[in-house]
Amino acid sequence: MQSPRTKIAQALQAEIPADGALNLRVKGWARTVRSGKKVTFISLNDGSSFGSLQVVVPPEVDDYEAITHLTTGSALSVEGELIESPAKGQRVELKATKVEIVGKADPSYPLQKKRHGFEFLREQAHLRVRTNTFGAVFRVRSALAQSVHRFFGERGFYYIHTPIITASDTEGAGEMFRVTTLPVGDPPRDDEGAVDDKQDFFAKPTFLTVSGQLNGETFALGLSDIYTFGPTFRAENSNTSRHASEFWMIEPEMAWHDLDDDCQLAEDFVKAMLKTALEDCAEDLAFFDKRIDKGLIERLTKVAEADFARITYTEAVELLEKSGKSFEFPVEWGKNLQAEHERYITEEILGRPTFVVDYPKEIKAFYMRRNDDGKTVAAMDLLVPKIGELIGGSQREERLDVLESIFASDPHLSVEDYDWYLDTRRFGTAPHAGFGLGFERLVMYATGMENIRDVIPFPRTPRTCEF
Amino acid sequence: MQSPRTKIAQALQAEIPADGALNLRVKGWARTVRSGKKVTFISLNDGSSFGSLQVVVPPEVDDYEAITHLTTGSALSVEGELIESPAKGQRVELKATKVEIVGKADPSYPLQKKRHGFEFLREQAHLRVRTNTFGAVFRVRSALAQSVHRFFGERGFYYIHTPIITASDTEGAGEMFRVTTLPVGDPPRDDEGAVDDKQDFFAKPTFLTVSGQLNGETFALGLSDIYTFGPTFRAENSNTSRHASEFWMIEPEMAWHDLDDDCQLAEDFVKAMLKTALEDCAEDLAFFDKRIDKGLIERLTKVAEADFARITYTEAVELLEKSGKSFEFPVEWGKNLQAEHERYITEEILGRPTFVVDYPKEIKAFYMRRNDDGKTVAAMDLLVPKIGELIGGSQREERLDVLESIFASDPHLSVEDYDWYLDTRRFGTAPHAGFGLGFERLVMYATGMENIRDVIPFPRTPRTCEF
Repeated sequence: MQSPRTKIAQALQAEIPADGALNLRVKGWARTVRSGKKVTFISLNDGSSFGSLQVVVPPEVDDYEAITHLTTGSALSVEGELIESPAKGQRVELKATKVEIVGKADPSYPLQKKRHGFEFLREQAHLRVRTNTFGAVFRVRSALAQSVHRFFGERGFYYIHTPIITASDTEGAGEMFRVTTLPVGDPPRDDEGAVDDKQDFFAKPTFLTVSGQLNGETFALGLSDIYTFGPTFRAENSNTSRHASEFWMIEPEMAWHDLDDDCQLAEDFVKAMLKTALEDCAEDLAFFDKRIDKGLIERLTKVAEADFARITYTEAVELLEKSGKSFEFPVEWGKNLQAEHERYITEEILGRPTFVVDYPKEIKAFYMRRNDDGKTVAAMDLLVPKIGELIGGSQREERLDVLESIFASDPHLSVEDYDWYLDTRRFGTAPHAGFGLGFERLVMYATGMENIRDVIPFPRTPRTCEF
Repeated sequence: MQSPRTKIAQALQAEIPADGALNLRVKGWARTVRSGKKVTFISLNDGSSFGSLQVVVPPEVDDYEAITHLTTGSALSVEGELIESPAKGQRVELKATKVEIVGKADPSYPLQKKRHGFEFLREQAHLRVRTNTFGAVFRVRSALAQSVHRFFGERGFYYIHTPIITASDTEGAGEMFRVTTLPVGDPPRDDEGAVDDKQDFFAKPTFLTVSGQLNGETFALGLSDIYTFGPTFRAENSNTSRHASEFWMIEPEMAWHDLDDDCQLAEDFVKAMLKTALEDCAEDLAFFDKRIDKGLIERLTKVAEADFARITYTEAVELLEKSGKSFEFPVEWGKNLQAEHERYITEEILGRPTFVVDYPKEIKAFYMRRNDDGKTVAAMDLLVPKIGELIGGSQREERLDVLESIFASDPHLSVEDYDWYLDTRRFGTAPHAGFGLGFERLVMYATGMENIRDVIPFPRTPRTCEF
């Protein structure tokens, strides 16, 4: 009978008993194979940790000749004795007594020992998780995602799956993908020759969602505290390192809470996420700090421990104007803050994560609560050093009459489309607030990775939909 | 200054101190308002628990007259003293000292006191979470979803977000939705007049995923243990109580494990989920047991404590034939088991959850591992009393030569489309296994709800895409 398998993460941390012998069996993929004069060294990794286990194969092991010819990427099952390692940089190593070659790697294996560029590795998205960098990225991504659910679960928030396919194309958050079962070039037509959308699958045009917020609001106004965490989509033809066509969003929504509470939740959330990365993924972060983004751990630690600042948009504009700094884009009340402004505020002026609140109503979405000044809305953006905006949120306009006047004055909004949304204001409306966070932006922030394509398992961007 | 808000779930469980007075503030929606001769009773619910808090408003409270005219569904903030309740069926009640009417409900509020049919409530999907049944459904759904992440997280599985938009339309799992930015009816055309898919957003035809499995496999062959939990889609025009066009799937995948391990994981998983429902949602389940599905708690408890049986498909066919029972569909080796067969096996023949393994290869997917008998594959279905199949899984065919011969003999499969998938068998292939579970089916099983439309916040089904 085979001894049970030990994951390499456990093997690396195992205590070797005083009498010296700890026999175990590991399974994984060879990162490197190096035959010396006396023995063969195999660096074995199974994804359970950043670190690989050094396997030392002496020549008396069966099939030693075949083992010396093993190629990088081969899948192996190894039995042996875990011993203290005489080598530098590793506490233990496995002295093999049996090596089973489970799956050889064809010598054309694309991930040879040399370092590969991230662009090349994007073309190997089905294999790149076997590299140091991408193993670490996707371990951190998973740890953060699970931590999102823990964070909200512990606070009594309900996880709501808002719909992916939607008939609403009017939220204005961005360009949308159409979802259809009609033949694109030859759809059925009505008497007037127009495409007969009634014969589409949902009997009307449908799209991929850009946000679950409005649906989420309706659930918050009944369950009090909810969050969504699901995929959202943008059909924008923008090929930047920070935009993907498909990405995951986190959107909490709290009834009975205002913008201040919303900022507090966002601050607690960001700190909890960074603590998860720092504490639960310490080995992976040490790698990122060393190889990808020097100073990462110090930056994240500072943010996790900071008191976040809060200033109004009006104050932010004044501070930027007073700074004397010359920006590419002019600073002017009523205009959006650009990334350069946002970074200057959080990095230079305040030197810590900063909430900017109360933005001019003209540059924010219709559902944000109108402030009493008649000019601003109860919106917030959280700015953090190095990347600028990380989170955007607002208190929602809960007053039916105010929302109705907004609808009346905006030709892009139709009461018919939003009748169900307005129902929540007709029937027991209550103050509520929430925010949205692109999950990939958080993963990039926590790892120092600079291209969104490198934190999504199989990224979708304009003209790219592989695997 | 206002006293902080207490959630009603906490208020209902609060200990009243010996000296008698516990002042607190609650916020929620009035489920009922009933004015007696001396006082007004308001049943207040904020979604944090099934139970509502009885608020007793004496006439000396400000605006008493307005309070007596409050309508069902109104949003209120109430301060008062939590006291032991003299009434039957409730431990505590809140003697109000101040009632703030936050948001009145227009008298046209659709959720009046009388019980509503589920079909009517589907048209009120934006409000139905405020009813007893749907509050309970979506609390249980959330508890189970969070428990999914806990279950896998505790076992070292990484959560992987597999893509929603895919260019692969050949997995054969079902009809797919097309995702496009081309104008339907008037797309650009190539020189031969065909739709020019190269001008579509991804420069080729793309679809909504039916499963993340193949992508998940590539990550398991590097990280060892992974799972997906995300939306999947079927463009099938089937209007049944068990099919939705958009639903959430859970798909774990384990390298270094075989079909036996896969069954064990599925058994552990189902038991853990039912324990979550029974222990963490006891109040909601008591409601379902009483009002929706009598015997629910006993059934779930039995499953959570059972040793699941394991039989082969061949044994299942023999047992069905020997049973003498006459079925609507004939039992015959080589044909799919029908729901009536599956339920008879688990309910009557074995009387407990049952894995049926080793199905004829002709009725299972190409990626399932061929058994040595040349006739069957290492597939498993988990059958449970009352609903039949709950989970389907398999060990995957990890042998490149076997997969290649399958591709060569199946005209629906092209090596070009799956080249990346085959790469995982070329480079360090390893035994692996996994399963898929429609999350909604689990929620239906745990709640006794019989229509999938009633366990999805905003269901999408043929000709229905509202909200």
